[in-house]
Amino acid sequence: MAPHAKKTTAKDRLLRAGMALCTEGGFQAMRLEKVLQQSGVPKGSFYHYFSSKKAFGLAVIDAYSDYFYAKLQHSLEDETVSPLQRLKNFAQDAENGMQRHNYLRGCLVGNLGQEMAALDEDFRQRLEAVLKRWEALTQQCLQAAQQAGEIHAKLDTAQFAQFFWIGWEGAILHAKLRRSPLPMQLFMDGFVASMRPSLAPYHNA
Amino acid sequence: MAPHAKKTTAKDRLLRAGMALCTEGGFQAMRLEKVLQQSGVPKGSFYHYFSSKKAFGLAVIDAYSDYFYAKLQHSLEDETVSPLQRLKNFAQDAENGMQRHNYLRGCLVGNLGQEMAALDEDFRQRLEAVLKRWEALTQQCLQAAQQAGEIHAKLDTAQFAQFFWIGWEGAILHAKLRRSPLPMQLFMDGFVASMRPSLAPYHNA
Repeated sequence: MAPHAKKTTAKDRLLRAGMALCTEGGFQAMRLEKVLQQSGVPKGSFYHYFSSKKAFGLAVIDAYSDYFYAKLQHSLEDETVSPLQRLKNFAQDAENGMQRHNYLRGCLVGNLGQEMAALDEDFRQRLEAVLKRWEALTQQCLQAAQQAGEIHAKLDTAQFAQFFWIGWEGAILHAKLRRSPLPMQLFMDGFVASMRPSLAPYHNA
Repeated sequence: MAPHAKKTTAKDRLLRAGMALCTEGGFQAMRLEKVLQQSGVPKGSFYHYFSSKKAFGLAVIDAYSDYFYAKLQHSLEDETVSPLQRLKNFAQDAENGMQRHNYLRGCLVGNLGQEMAALDEDFRQRLEAVLKRWEALTQQCLQAAQQAGEIHAKLDTAQFAQFFWIGWEGAILHAKLRRSPLPMQLFMDGFVASMRPSLAPYHNA
């Protein structure tokens, strides 16, 4: 084993398969047999780690939250480029990912959010907390962009961070529907343009 | 029977149940037994009208498209108020609807869009066509707002109509996740503000 290779446990493999299946088809459509098949883990081991499909689903949300947060950090905390460029790099990275998976995988939070009527309050709270975490990191990036003079000095970064995630989830959905990166580009261009430093009347109103 | 009451056919009742179930939980989770139970239609009649669940699903999309288009027209072609107010009225109406259904029902196009990995090309094309129809009507409303001087004279109404539906689908999703109208309000306020007539630098760039 290479010195840096981390040992992959059965639990890791189960969670990875769960994330892949939930980003494609959501929670309800995820069948246990498929999780076992994709992870190569026997049923008995699954129940050693998770008491039920629900317990597994919540653990998959947590794993995805961490995975995606690290991805976001990788772009949004990259100090080699300007803060606004970091956000654009995140979007470009996501665009490449969507293309790589042939627009079949979306956002796990978006998929499970659409299933809210069938999922219980535990899921809802967990997903809401994930979004808040992403929003907070995005807000920090917008504050840095503000300090760098890249976006309007008076805009409410908390509101714009929320606006970003509202629109971005919609853009991912439209990209899946159109099998095209255009909705992501169109949203991102509009979002960035709406924060320009020269737009005083918008933000002072 | 009251003179204006239109006779409801078994087919209408099946489609109505299908729309309700798909706006809640999407297509894959919709079980035929539930459709029959909610519509009070026997299984034999279902197969008289629809050869398969897929055929039913496509017919549900068409029925929802027409239902929602009429709803959109009701707001966006209401000449008693200004064009921009029409769009705001549509959003307010949708907000009330989400509240009335306790944030359990979303948009059928959004729900099925999230399921794209599991649905075939016929679904995708049908859903894309529905969105294009809504975008076209929205663009007409934005053009009228432009003529009335309510939004910037040079903005690209086709692009803004697309931007609206990208963000709006995201807002519906976030409203479901947060069980709150705030995401819809936040998106709408930001969208309207970004179109202001005074925002020349944005649209001339």
